[in-house]
Amino acid sequence: MKKYLPSPPGSSNPSIRIELLQPNKTDALAYVDGGGPEPVKYAHVVIDHGASETPTYDDIRVGPLPIKNGTTKWEPLDYVLTRKTCGRVRNLDADSKLRRTFLASVAASVADITMDLWNASYTGAQNDTLTIWGTDPVYQDGDTIKRWDVFMNIPTSIFDVQSLLPMGLYYFSDVTGRDPSKWKVEGWYYNGVFYETTEEFRDAYWGNEVEKLGGNADGPWAQTDRQGDMLPQDDKVAPTAVAPAGGRFSVDLQEKYVEWMGWSFMIGFDFDTGMSLHDIRYKDQRILYELGLQEAMAHYAGSDPTQSHTAYLDTYYGFGPYAFGLLPGYDCPAYATMLNTSFYQTESTHTHVNSICLFEFEGDYPMVRHTAANYASATKNIYFVVRSVSTVGNYDYMFSYTFFLDGSLSVEVRASGYIQAAYYAKNEDYGFKITDTLSGSMHDHVLNFKADFDLFGVNNTVQVQEQVPETRSYPWSKGKVFNTMKLKRSFIENEDEGRFDWSPNSANQIFVVNKDVKNKYGEYRGYRVLPSNTAHLTMKESTVLKNAARWSEHDVAVTVCKDTEPRSSHHYNNQDTSYPPVNFIDFFDSENLDQKDLVLWLNLGMHHIPHTGDLPNTVFTTAHSGLLFMPTNYFDVGVNIQTTQMVKVEYGGGKISNVTTFKQQSETCPLNYKPVEFNLADYKGDVVVRKFPYSPNDPFYETLGVP
Amino acid sequence: MKKYLPSPPGSSNPSIRIELLQPNKTDALAYVDGGGPEPVKYAHVVIDHGASETPTYDDIRVGPLPIKNGTTKWEPLDYVLTRKTCGRVRNLDADSKLRRTFLASVAASVADITMDLWNASYTGAQNDTLTIWGTDPVYQDGDTIKRWDVFMNIPTSIFDVQSLLPMGLYYFSDVTGRDPSKWKVEGWYYNGVFYETTEEFRDAYWGNEVEKLGGNADGPWAQTDRQGDMLPQDDKVAPTAVAPAGGRFSVDLQEKYVEWMGWSFMIGFDFDTGMSLHDIRYKDQRILYELGLQEAMAHYAGSDPTQSHTAYLDTYYGFGPYAFGLLPGYDCPAYATMLNTSFYQTESTHTHVNSICLFEFEGDYPMVRHTAANYASATKNIYFVVRSVSTVGNYDYMFSYTFFLDGSLSVEVRASGYIQAAYYAKNEDYGFKITDTLSGSMHDHVLNFKADFDLFGVNNTVQVQEQVPETRSYPWSKGKVFNTMKLKRSFIENEDEGRFDWSPNSANQIFVVNKDVKNKYGEYRGYRVLPSNTAHLTMKESTVLKNAARWSEHDVAVTVCKDTEPRSSHHYNNQDTSYPPVNFIDFFDSENLDQKDLVLWLNLGMHHIPHTGDLPNTVFTTAHSGLLFMPTNYFDVGVNIQTTQMVKVEYGGGKISNVTTFKQQSETCPLNYKPVEFNLADYKGDVVVRKFPYSPNDPFYETLGVP
Repeated sequence: MKKYLPSPPGSSNPSIRIELLQPNKTDALAYVDGGGPEPVKYAHVVIDHGASETPTYDDIRVGPLPIKNGTTKWEPLDYVLTRKTCGRVRNLDADSKLRRTFLASVAASVADITMDLWNASYTGAQNDTLTIWGTDPVYQDGDTIKRWDVFMNIPTSIFDVQSLLPMGLYYFSDVTGRDPSKWKVEGWYYNGVFYETTEEFRDAYWGNEVEKLGGNADGPWAQTDRQGDMLPQDDKVAPTAVAPAGGRFSVDLQEKYVEWMGWSFMIGFDFDTGMSLHDIRYKDQRILYELGLQEAMAHYAGSDPTQSHTAYLDTYYGFGPYAFGLLPGYDCPAYATMLNTSFYQTESTHTHVNSICLFEFEGDYPMVRHTAANYASATKNIYFVVRSVSTVGNYDYMFSYTFFLDGSLSVEVRASGYIQAAYYAKNEDYGFKITDTLSGSMHDHVLNFKADFDLFGVNNTVQVQEQVPETRSYPWSKGKVFNTMKLKRSFIENEDEGRFDWSPNSANQIFVVNKDVKNKYGEYRGYRVLPSNTAHLTMKESTVLKNAARWSEHDVAVTVCKDTEPRSSHHYNNQDTSYPPVNFIDFFDSENLDQKDLVLWLNLGMHHIPHTGDLPNTVFTTAHSGLLFMPTNYFDVGVNIQTTQMVKVEYGGGKISNVTTFKQQSETCPLNYKPVEFNLADYKGDVVVRKFPYSPNDPFYETLGVP
Repeated sequence: MKKYLPSPPGSSNPSIRIELLQPNKTDALAYVDGGGPEPVKYAHVVIDHGASETPTYDDIRVGPLPIKNGTTKWEPLDYVLTRKTCGRVRNLDADSKLRRTFLASVAASVADITMDLWNASYTGAQNDTLTIWGTDPVYQDGDTIKRWDVFMNIPTSIFDVQSLLPMGLYYFSDVTGRDPSKWKVEGWYYNGVFYETTEEFRDAYWGNEVEKLGGNADGPWAQTDRQGDMLPQDDKVAPTAVAPAGGRFSVDLQEKYVEWMGWSFMIGFDFDTGMSLHDIRYKDQRILYELGLQEAMAHYAGSDPTQSHTAYLDTYYGFGPYAFGLLPGYDCPAYATMLNTSFYQTESTHTHVNSICLFEFEGDYPMVRHTAANYASATKNIYFVVRSVSTVGNYDYMFSYTFFLDGSLSVEVRASGYIQAAYYAKNEDYGFKITDTLSGSMHDHVLNFKADFDLFGVNNTVQVQEQVPETRSYPWSKGKVFNTMKLKRSFIENEDEGRFDWSPNSANQIFVVNKDVKNKYGEYRGYRVLPSNTAHLTMKESTVLKNAARWSEHDVAVTVCKDTEPRSSHHYNNQDTSYPPVNFIDFFDSENLDQKDLVLWLNLGMHHIPHTGDLPNTVFTTAHSGLLFMPTNYFDVGVNIQTTQMVKVEYGGGKISNVTTFKQQSETCPLNYKPVEFNLADYKGDVVVRKFPYSPNDPFYETLGVP
C-alpha cells in the first residue's frame, strides 16, 4: 500500500498507499507494560498529489480507526518527519510518462546513430530494441531538475541481465517543471567526450570523429543456468540438513509471534522496510523493543554520468513488495516453517506466499567444547533463524535474524543477484574490467538498522570500552616499566558524541547497559554490539545524496528514542535530497544520553568492487555484513549451559567410562529423505515487481500484461 | 617428536624430538614441477642439552636418510633460524624439577598463612591442597632469570577448572643459574601491596595488617554439565546434517591427499603447529604452496605480576600433541571422514585417533540466488571443511579450512574451553569482575599464518587497492564538482613496505597477482585476501615478549620466500625473548617484492575481555577470526556456475511452467537416522597432555600414573 500504485479510476490525486501506522512507543509501552489503554489505531495514507502546478506526495494520518463519521480526522502526518511542510514533499514522478515520451523522442533523434553503432534503437515504440535507464536520484539544483540517461540493451533470454547491458551513450536533459515543451537536451557523452548539443554530437559522429566501441549483449556469460563440465561426484546428492523431530519452536501464525528456547518476539512487516522484529525478549525480559532495517543505500561512483550519479535509497522502491516467495531447500532448509507477507496494491491486498522462513539449524561447529585429562565435552551450536529476501531490482538482499543458545542474537545481510555494471570506457579508476565492454562499477552498500534496546526498562546508557596500549610500572615491579595494555571505559554522554566509528584493530567495544542494574559482582548487565564486516560510506558529503542519507556517514549513532523520530530515513528522501522529509542529522541536538530511552542506529555494509567472479551473479558468501548482540555480564554464567544438546565423554586408561548426553532424545529413527525438489513445483510465481527499467507510475508492469 | 619427552634411560643429553624435516621449497618444487630429483630427506632432531653449565636446546639436522654409516651427517640446523648460534638456544627448563622443589619450599614457608587464609597449602607433598603457576615466559634480563608464581586452588571435580582458581597471593624469585643454593625469594604481592621479603610479608600478615580476601574454589559455576531448567522442547532431537550419498570427495588416507569438486591439496601435520595444507590447487593450478599456522600468542595484561607477564607462544607446548580426537556429531558432522595424526614421544610414535575431520556441508543460506520476472534461481552453498582442534591447556583452538564452489577458500580459528582468569583484586582496568573473587583477564589472541601463494608460478606481487574519497569534476559535468570516491592502486614494492594493517572502514583491499598473467580483459588474475574479525596485538613493543613475536605487530606482512625463512616463529622463542631463535623482524631487509616468490604472513586474532558469559566455557560463536582467499578476475565468470546444486523455477500467469534441477539426483531415499550418540562410545580417551600445571620435563603427567 504505497506509492507505485496506478491511480484509481476517476481520481487525479489518488491514495497510493494505505498502511496501519505503527503506534508510538510511548503509547505501546503504556499498553503492553503499564496496563494502559490499547493505543488508538491510525492509518498512514500517502497521496500522490499530482493534479497541481507543484505536485507533491502527502503523508496523511487518518483515524482513529475504525472510521466513523464525525470523529475520524484526516491530518498531515509530519510529526514523524524532520521537515515540517505539512507532510508534503515534492513529487518528481508526477510526469513520468510524459517524461518517458520526451526521453524517447530524444533517443529517436539519434536512432540513425544507434542503428549504425548497434543496429538497435529506442524510440518509444513497442518493438524498441534498446531502452534507457536514468539515475536515482535525479539531478536536483533547487527547483531545477535534470537527468542523465544511458542507452541499455534489452535481454534476449528470460534471464534478468539488463543491469549488465549499458551501451555507453548518455544524454543530459533539463526536465524542470510540468511543461514538456520547456524540457530540453543539454548534452551527450560517449567514450570520454562531452558534446554540448545533439547537433554537435551528430556532426561529430557522422563526421567520423567518434571512435565506435562495442555494446553489451545478453549471452551465456550473463546467464545463471549451469555451465561447463560437471564437477567430480556432483551428480550425487549433497549433504543437507534435516529436522527429525520437526520444529522445536512455537509460532502464532496470526499474530506472527514466535518462541524458541527462551526467546520470544513478534514479526512485523511493512511496505518500505520489509520484515522487522519487535519486543524481542529472552526469558521474558525485553532486550529490544524494535530491530529492523531503516534504509539501504547502494552508492556508485564512476567516470560516466549515470554511475557517478547513482545512489539508490531502496525504500523508495520498498522492501515489502519485493520480498518474494523463498525457494525451500535453497533459500532456507526444506523443513523450514514458512510465513506469508502482504502488501496493498490497486485497492486490494496482495500476498507473497512463503516469503518469511523460520528454522532451527545445527552449525557446522559446536557452541562450546573442551578436552581435558579425563573427559571431553561439547555442546551443539543449534540456532534459530528468521529470514526474508527482498529482490529490489538487480540485487537480492537476504536478511537473517539469528538467535543463539548463549543469549546472543545477530542480524545479517547478504547480497546476491546481478550487479549493476558500468560501460567500460574510461572507468579504470572505478572498477575492474569484467568483459570486453563492461566495468564492475564500484559501489558502497550501506544498510541502516534501528536497534531500540530496552534493558531492564527504557533508561539505558551506551558504554564504550577501549583497549589501549599502556606504559606503566606496578607496586610489585620495583620501578620496572612495562609496555602493556589496559581498558579505558567511558559513557556516551550526549548526542554530540553520538556518532562514531569502529576503531582500527577493533580497539573499541560498545555496550548498552542500564546504569541502575548491575549483576551481583558489580558489573553492568549489558549487551555488547559486535560488528562483523560492516562498512560506512566511503565518500564524504556525497554530492549526489546531500542530506538524504546522513545516517551512512558513521558506523554507529546513538540518539534519544522519540515518537517523533521513529525512522532514520523516509521513502521519499530521494525526491528532495537537499531538504528531505527525514534528515537524520536533525536527530542530533545535543540531548543528554545518560540513562535515557536510547536508539542505536547501526550500519551494516560492504564495499563492492565487482570482479569477474560476480558474473553472472554475486555470491552471498563474500557479500556479507553482520552485527551480533551479545549478553555481557548479563547472566551469571553463559546460559548455553542450559541446553540438553550437549555431551560429555569420560575416559581413562584408554577406555571410555561414561557417555552422558543430558536427556537428548537419541533413538534411531527412519527418515523419509527427499533431498532436492521439496515444494518447488508448488512455488508461487508472483506479481511482477521490478526496479528496472523503472516506471514510477507503473511499477508492476501491468501495462505489459504480466499478471 | 619434540621437547617434552622424558629422558631416555641413561641419557643425560637426550634427543627429545625427531621429526622429518620439511624439504626446502626450492628442492620440492624442482621435484614436483620440474622433474628434478626427489629431495634428500633429513631428520630434525632436538637435543635437550641439559648436562652442561649453560644448558641449551639444540636443533640438529641428521641425514641424508635413511641413515648409513659414513654418509649420514649430524650438523647444527641453524639455516632456518635468524639467530646464528649453531642451532642452540638456552634451555630454561633444564632444572625445572629442582626449581619446583625450591618454589615449593618457598610456598611451604608461608603454609601457616595459606592455611589461615584458605585452609590449604602447597609444600611439594603428595597431598598438597594448593599448587602454583608461574608465568610464560619467565622474566629475562640478560642472564638473570626470575619468576613470579601465584598460588592456585586445585579442582575438586573432574572438570578442568584450574585456570579459574587463582588465589591472589604471588611471590617473586630469582632462579638464575644452575645452583639452587643461589636462588632466592625477592618479594611477595597480595591485594595491591608489595612486600620486599618473606619476613616482611609474614610480619604484616600476622600483625593483622593484611586484609584477608576470599579464594577461588571449584563449583557448579565452573563446570560444564547441563544446568538449570530444561529449555522448551529441548528434549526433542534438534535438526542436524546428513549425507545421504556419503562422501562426495576423494581422500588418499596414506598420503593425506584430498580432492573435492576441482580442489586438491595435501594435509601435513607436525609437532609445533599441528595441521597444515600443502600444494593447494584448483583445477590443477596451484594457488598456495603452503598454508598453515606458524604461532599462536595469548598475551595477557593485568595489575598482578602473573597476568601482566603472561604471553603464551603456544608452539612451545605444541599444537601437534594437543590435537586430540574429535567428537563426531559435535566437533564435526557425524558423517565426517576422520583421519589420525601422530607424534613422537618416549621412543615411540603415538597416534591421536580421529583428530582431523573432513566433511562436506550445506550452509544455511545459498551461494547465489535471484528472483526475476519469470523465474527464481538459486545455488546451494555446499562447502568442504578440513578441521582439527588443539586443546593447549585451558583453550581449545578449532582450525577450519573451508573450500567453496566459487574457488574461494578460508581459514578460520575459533576459541573455546576455559578462560585463564585473574584474581580480582585491583584488576578493574584489565577485565570485568566475573565472580566474587575473579576477574576475566583481558588478553589478545593473535595467530600467525603462512600463506605461500604461487599464482601461475612462484613470481607474484601484492597489489593494494584503496577505496578513497575523491573530489573532482568530469568532462560532462560542465564544471560542477562532485564529492565521490575512487580506487587507488599500488604494488608493495619491497620489504620496507611489507608490514601494514587493514585500514579503517575496510578501505584497503589486497590482492596477490602475477603481473605477467592477465585475463583476456587485461586484469590481473589474482586472489584477494579478505579479513573477517581479525586482530593484531594491542600493545606496542611488549616488554614481556620483546623480540619473540614481532609478527604480531601488524595484520599483514609480505616477504620474499626463502628456504632460510620457512617459519615466522620457533618453538623456543620464549627461552630467550630478547634474542630468540627466530626474530621475525630479521626477515625484513628491504628486498624487492616485485614479481618474487612471496609469502604472506597473516594474523588472525581476537581481543578477548572475558565476561560472565565466558563461564564455564568461552563460546565459539563469538570467539572467531577468519581470512578468506577469493579469486578475483581469476576466472572469466564465477566458477560456482559449474555445480549441479542449482535450481531454476520458471513461472508466469500464477503458474509454474518449469523446474530445472540441473542433474542433481533427486530420488526419495530412506535414511537410517541416528541422531546423537554416533560413535561416541568408541571415542578414544587419549594420552593425557596438558599445559597446566606445566612441568616441562614431565608434560604428559606420566608420573601421575595416567597412561
